[in-house]
Amino acid sequence: MTDRGRRTERGAVLFDLDGTLIDSVYQHVLAWRDALEAEGIELPVWGIHRKVGMSGGLFARALLRETGAALDVAQAERLQANHEDAFARYAVGVRPLPGARALLERLTALEVPWAIATSGRRPRATAGVQLLRVAEAAPLITHDEVRFAKPDPDLFLAAADALGVPIEDCVVVGDSVWDLLAARRARALGVGLLSGGYGRDELERAGAFRVYEDPVDLLDHLDEIGIRDA
Amino acid sequence: MTDRGRRTERGAVLFDLDGTLIDSVYQHVLAWRDALEAEGIELPVWGIHRKVGMSGGLFARALLRETGAALDVAQAERLQANHEDAFARYAVGVRPLPGARALLERLTALEVPWAIATSGRRPRATAGVQLLRVAEAAPLITHDEVRFAKPDPDLFLAAADALGVPIEDCVVVGDSVWDLLAARRARALGVGLLSGGYGRDELERAGAFRVYEDPVDLLDHLDEIGIRDA
Repeated sequence: MTDRGRRTERGAVLFDLDGTLIDSVYQHVLAWRDALEAEGIELPVWGIHRKVGMSGGLFARALLRETGAALDVAQAERLQANHEDAFARYAVGVRPLPGARALLERLTALEVPWAIATSGRRPRATAGVQLLRVAEAAPLITHDEVRFAKPDPDLFLAAADALGVPIEDCVVVGDSVWDLLAARRARALGVGLLSGGYGRDELERAGAFRVYEDPVDLLDHLDEIGIRDA
Repeated sequence: MTDRGRRTERGAVLFDLDGTLIDSVYQHVLAWRDALEAEGIELPVWGIHRKVGMSGGLFARALLRETGAALDVAQAERLQANHEDAFARYAVGVRPLPGARALLERLTALEVPWAIATSGRRPRATAGVQLLRVAEAAPLITHDEVRFAKPDPDLFLAAADALGVPIEDCVVVGDSVWDLLAARRARALGVGLLSGGYGRDELERAGAFRVYEDPVDLLDHLDEIGIRDA
């Protein structure tokens, strides 16, 4: 049996970033609130929370539907820029989620390939990954590498490609319904984490095969997603 | 039939404030994160979110259990003060929830008595109520008026007393499981709103008789909680 064969039997793990490995969802949500209000769009914060993690383009369409506000291209670009500025103010409080680093290092030690796939853009994603202080380099796929972000499957498909593992052998770990929808469309197994602030039921109804509290809880139950020790 | 008799048949509505009438939950959550970190206590933000709305004393005990950190009286007081300071920085973005003012004014027009009952302290609660710009004065019960805040029933019992309506004829409207637990313990009917960012299932399992998105959604369905038009 080749080394490659052994690895593929174990599969690979594809992680979302915000709310899954780093504790940044609530800051993003308030940054969107500020950015939207600057454009004269008032939306309740919980409604924004439920859309965080989807691609910026879909987010803008969802806003259109809910507010009836017409969003032209210039305004959409300003909104994105406003959000980046506002997030920079909130980002000082962003920390890794409990067990995130230990989980990634455990997978590395077990020779289970892993990658990170986020709907965000590369500069901010890189800054987020740096918070994790993981020694090993792993593929990082962002919206800059694919045309359509979540809930399209492209980000996870690209991450599986980067690892050389068939997507059907991958477990996708995410905190939002958009991660789970993208996982299902990609034909991967979706696992939910509560650490982005969605309810367990929301994640299960979106197709989560299992739901854990946070990375440390997943680390304690790796056997349940078919990852064997050594 | 006396006026008093007619009112009691219609019952009364007792509202939570944060996440139910004003859109302040996410700001409170991040303010708690900052305050806790200043005391050397690192907790993931979603975990803080799930405890917001319970009394400060119970919140401190819940922290103790989850972090194992011993919290002495001086530290608990500092934590509370740190939170007030941090919230003041976030409060600039707090707005009324959609339909909050219209809902309260509709109840007034229908002669359905209503009151507000919050686990918070009076100065901040008063500032929150002012955001609603409601013409009519209504009872506001805070932690300063009762010994035990939510999930104890005392706040809602005091609010019903202030209206002179039996608690069994009251509908309690809140966004958190602590509101619904307090409602059940008080023998009132609990109604949940999603606008504090909890999932529908969490609220239903905590005893919500009905769940609506936000105040405007409740306003559109007043008949479902037994409030008749004139």
